[in-house]
Amino acid sequence: MLTLIKNIKELVQVETGQPKLRAMGKEMAQLETIKNAYLAVEDGKIKAFGPMQELGAAPIYPDREVDATGRMVFPSFCDSHTHLVYAGSREIEYCDKIRGLSYEEIARRGGGILNSAKRVQEASEQELYDDARQRLEQMIALGSGAVEIKSGYGMTVEAEMKMLRVIRRLKETSPLVIKSTLLGAHGVPMEYRGRQNEFVDMVIDKMIPQAAAEGLADFIDVFCDQGFFTVEETDRMLEAGAKYGLRPKIHANELAYSGGIQCAVRHNALSCDHLEYTGDAEIEALLGSETMPTVLPGAAFFLNMVHAPVRKMIDAGLGVAMASDCNPGSSPSPNMQLILSMACVNYRMLPEEAINAVTLNSAYAMGVSREVGTIAVGKSANFFITKPIPSYEYMPYAYGENKVERAFLAGQEQ
Amino acid sequence: MLTLIKNIKELVQVETGQPKLRAMGKEMAQLETIKNAYLAVEDGKIKAFGPMQELGAAPIYPDREVDATGRMVFPSFCDSHTHLVYAGSREIEYCDKIRGLSYEEIARRGGGILNSAKRVQEASEQELYDDARQRLEQMIALGSGAVEIKSGYGMTVEAEMKMLRVIRRLKETSPLVIKSTLLGAHGVPMEYRGRQNEFVDMVIDKMIPQAAAEGLADFIDVFCDQGFFTVEETDRMLEAGAKYGLRPKIHANELAYSGGIQCAVRHNALSCDHLEYTGDAEIEALLGSETMPTVLPGAAFFLNMVHAPVRKMIDAGLGVAMASDCNPGSSPSPNMQLILSMACVNYRMLPEEAINAVTLNSAYAMGVSREVGTIAVGKSANFFITKPIPSYEYMPYAYGENKVERAFLAGQEQ
Repeated sequence: MLTLIKNIKELVQVETGQPKLRAMGKEMAQLETIKNAYLAVEDGKIKAFGPMQELGAAPIYPDREVDATGRMVFPSFCDSHTHLVYAGSREIEYCDKIRGLSYEEIARRGGGILNSAKRVQEASEQELYDDARQRLEQMIALGSGAVEIKSGYGMTVEAEMKMLRVIRRLKETSPLVIKSTLLGAHGVPMEYRGRQNEFVDMVIDKMIPQAAAEGLADFIDVFCDQGFFTVEETDRMLEAGAKYGLRPKIHANELAYSGGIQCAVRHNALSCDHLEYTGDAEIEALLGSETMPTVLPGAAFFLNMVHAPVRKMIDAGLGVAMASDCNPGSSPSPNMQLILSMACVNYRMLPEEAINAVTLNSAYAMGVSREVGTIAVGKSANFFITKPIPSYEYMPYAYGENKVERAFLAGQEQ
Repeated sequence: MLTLIKNIKELVQVETGQPKLRAMGKEMAQLETIKNAYLAVEDGKIKAFGPMQELGAAPIYPDREVDATGRMVFPSFCDSHTHLVYAGSREIEYCDKIRGLSYEEIARRGGGILNSAKRVQEASEQELYDDARQRLEQMIALGSGAVEIKSGYGMTVEAEMKMLRVIRRLKETSPLVIKSTLLGAHGVPMEYRGRQNEFVDMVIDKMIPQAAAEGLADFIDVFCDQGFFTVEETDRMLEAGAKYGLRPKIHANELAYSGGIQCAVRHNALSCDHLEYTGDAEIEALLGSETMPTVLPGAAFFLNMVHAPVRKMIDAGLGVAMASDCNPGSSPSPNMQLILSMACVNYRMLPEEAINAVTLNSAYAMGVSREVGTIAVGKSANFFITKPIPSYEYMPYAYGENKVERAFLAGQEQ
């Protein structure tokens, strides 16, 4: 089955030269595109692409043609940080926050991560799967083609494994590229309050080995921040994960200059995420590392947080990825188009930098650069066709609109 | 033709008692709803509504039934401040802003309001109509049912009248409730630089009389702010408008404590809009007036502005309305659902306050309270049915999602 998308107004984020792994510093402002282009897809992979006039010289005989006149084609977004498996929304707790209730008061009323944990513990695997599957459909319609999903609302071995099994089933049944992360240390459950060390032992002695034994996790994550897990605890858990080949992707520096970023680099994490508190020492640690700094604009928006110094990070030579952080507590949206807009509006990124952050660099941040993230021959045909739009700059600019008209994953229209 | 919407999970913003004109202060946190409700619509109007169990006692025999199980019904949003008639998006100029170009440099490159003015002057009435009509369709799909549209990109008598004629045609052909505002004094065209007074004379002597003679405007607007039109100039123009029965709705205090709010109140404006610079004196002026303070969160977001002190205004006893400000320069989105989210996230409004701001109060701010803005018997049947959602608080909470499933205007499904 050979599909030809023709008359593409502009084919965005193409690779015609050496394969790109990630964009760093000034490279982030570079975006390779082809105007008036075609894209050929076969057996779920990108077979060829180029200017329409080259199609005349070497014609393709497709089984199916799609005319994209007036429309652009982008590689699907890679959403490298989500908590997509959960049971129930938390809007009432959000209202309590607006009313001025403190984090502690909300926790006393049963809110926060522990709220989601209780509900996940009570929910069946099927319910969790059905809900997450619905969210994945929404993500596809908004242009995402790859997503990392964390556990972390389980808090018991049993419930964490249940979440990971749900993610495995999503991997098996969804057309999206999915990666799974064990976030055993997302918060400390009530019964371990005052005995945090024992909880960490439990993560190390039980959760990590069991997730590894069943092959349920691609990565390991820890909420390493002030009031959550210390750098020393994170060190211990990441070392335990490393024994099972689990590369870290950690939550860091959302709440303070907590040493999380340096910890991530020390463990050769694939990414460290949030990063509101990133200073010169943190930037220094990241430079020359293989760790992708990942900023989550949706959470910063929803929680009214300070913004990570993205401009400073890029100007210092770092690459930056961005993801939705989709979760019921701090970022109840999987809309990567809005992330693109927030990148430009709230972080003063150029559209080219923002597009690199949500495709090439976020693919790197979830370990799928070789499969997706750009339009390159041999990569999985995960892309979307936009509605008629005047330019790629229009994507972040028109911030309240779904600009995706048709989504293709592994070459199949969704 | 009698339509019955039944099994509504919750019917939101109903009026069962005295007609409400606007919600002020503490009233803003009050939202009347009916759980497990029905809504009956006949000849484009709301005929009846109430709890499902009352339907048993007094059955209705509809021509058409809609089952809304699991879904909520809201009155359509009233978007009381837009610049919806324009030619061409301005994303490239937006990128220049991100690159750090000043307002003056952008103006020198042909950007800003004058950019839109040039394009509107060149566009045909048909082109302007077609583009605006498409935007109206998008607004309907996002839940809006009434919209105020301003001129202001004309800058010449001829082009301003062209814009107003486009709005008149939209009124005649669109199912939305539309109000038209003459914004002759939106900026000073190049040829009048240094002779602003003469431009004001031209607005008074030509634009206002001609718009009035042709019956093209419902309201008059002036951009009364630092760097635009002074209070004295605004006074002159609003007095001229008053002679023709044009009630003011003015742009005020977006850029400075410019006296615009006091000016609006002095002229008994229906609304004054933007209001980032609102202090104690401005609140004092608004209290007891008939002028609805209207905040435009989309523009504040897109331009990274300080936020209007909405919490303080409501706590002082004022009502507040919110609108999209949809326009190609400072708020390229007509998405009122996102405005609802920004109300809660950026302005710390409760969902009830936010819902009042975009329905009841914004209906007041565009002079259509008697027609729309709430679910009340006799009002136009402008409403939407949501997708299955758990609560009305979910509307602002799930910020990146279109929660509208079906829209009805004047009783007709769109």
